[in-house]
Amino acid sequence: MRLVSFRLAGVSRTAKPNAARRSERSRQAVLTAARELVPELGYARVTIEAIAARAGVGKQTIYRWWPSKGAVILDSILALSEGEQGVRLPDTGELAADLRAVMRATVAEFADPVFEAPLRALTIEIAADPDLAAMYRERLAGPVDEAKKERLRSAQRAGQLRPDADLDLVLEVLYAPLQQRWLRRSGPLTDDYADALVDLTLRAFAP
Amino acid sequence: MRLVSFRLAGVSRTAKPNAARRSERSRQAVLTAARELVPELGYARVTIEAIAARAGVGKQTIYRWWPSKGAVILDSILALSEGEQGVRLPDTGELAADLRAVMRATVAEFADPVFEAPLRALTIEIAADPDLAAMYRERLAGPVDEAKKERLRSAQRAGQLRPDADLDLVLEVLYAPLQQRWLRRSGPLTDDYADALVDLTLRAFAP
Repeated sequence: MRLVSFRLAGVSRTAKPNAARRSERSRQAVLTAARELVPELGYARVTIEAIAARAGVGKQTIYRWWPSKGAVILDSILALSEGEQGVRLPDTGELAADLRAVMRATVAEFADPVFEAPLRALTIEIAADPDLAAMYRERLAGPVDEAKKERLRSAQRAGQLRPDADLDLVLEVLYAPLQQRWLRRSGPLTDDYADALVDLTLRAFAP
Repeated sequence: MRLVSFRLAGVSRTAKPNAARRSERSRQAVLTAARELVPELGYARVTIEAIAARAGVGKQTIYRWWPSKGAVILDSILALSEGEQGVRLPDTGELAADLRAVMRATVAEFADPVFEAPLRALTIEIAADPDLAAMYRERLAGPVDEAKKERLRSAQRAGQLRPDADLDLVLEVLYAPLQQRWLRRSGPLTDDYADALVDLTLRAFAP
């Protein structure tokens, strides 16, 4: 269920020569090290040096492959879904039930420090860095949002959602309150809250 | 109109002895310096040293009065509304028109770099620092939200809003999409977008 909110399917990898395989091992070691260190130390204390040491690679390897610490974190989150099938939302034919399942899965992700800490670090870096924000939209948010919109289009065809609804807006109404409450720690994140967001979104965009 | 979204009325100050007046002048100089430097240098490059130099005070003065750079920024934003009357939303009796005016004012604030840069810096610091987040809620977001809820209660009494609506949720649906789009730079911030958020919120919480 995790993949439906943030994880993203990677491109399946073809066989590679030895040097490429060694490179790939280093790359994976860096991403794993970054993902582990953020919840352990707190993002502010995670340095490129610390990631390199934990991964057993040279600092220069990291500087060569990634433009910033934030870009390492983005890749470390993307790597969680490499090799998985493409993102697809459940489609039981009942939009409310499907969205509740997806939103509750997001609430569960935010409650998991192993996932929460790198995602918070990435969200902060994105707010500070327009280039990273563009990279995030292109490689993570864009494809995930497209999968969500596919489910919403199916609901429009089934007459469960206003046919002229702006689907970007629908997604924002559904997710932005949850993500803001999480980011600012301004209220409890519960299944009831997830359900309330689904219910009000469906009222707002009822056919 | 700016006060309705972020500015906050300060407590009016009574006459003070000379030492207190000198302190107050230093405090104001620090807050002005912080507010000016953030759009000039970018928040990451604004140091306590730079703020002290611009304000003409010693570094230790800043360290004595504020626990962190984020706390200086929070106070520098609060200082914009010191001496103003208490926050109050327009109440023409027409909820949709009043909310559109307030939301469009917020869109205009986000378009103003002098206001936008410190607010972005504060939002980022809040996401990273739970203590600052609590201070922000207590001193800025809490009172502003209370003023907004007062307007919503008046609309409930007038039968323009569902009487059992969770007003925190109403505010989140209204503001979180706008604030997230701003923070992530994920879409245009326009008057039409402000109006669309008002319209969908009123549909979602119609009586």
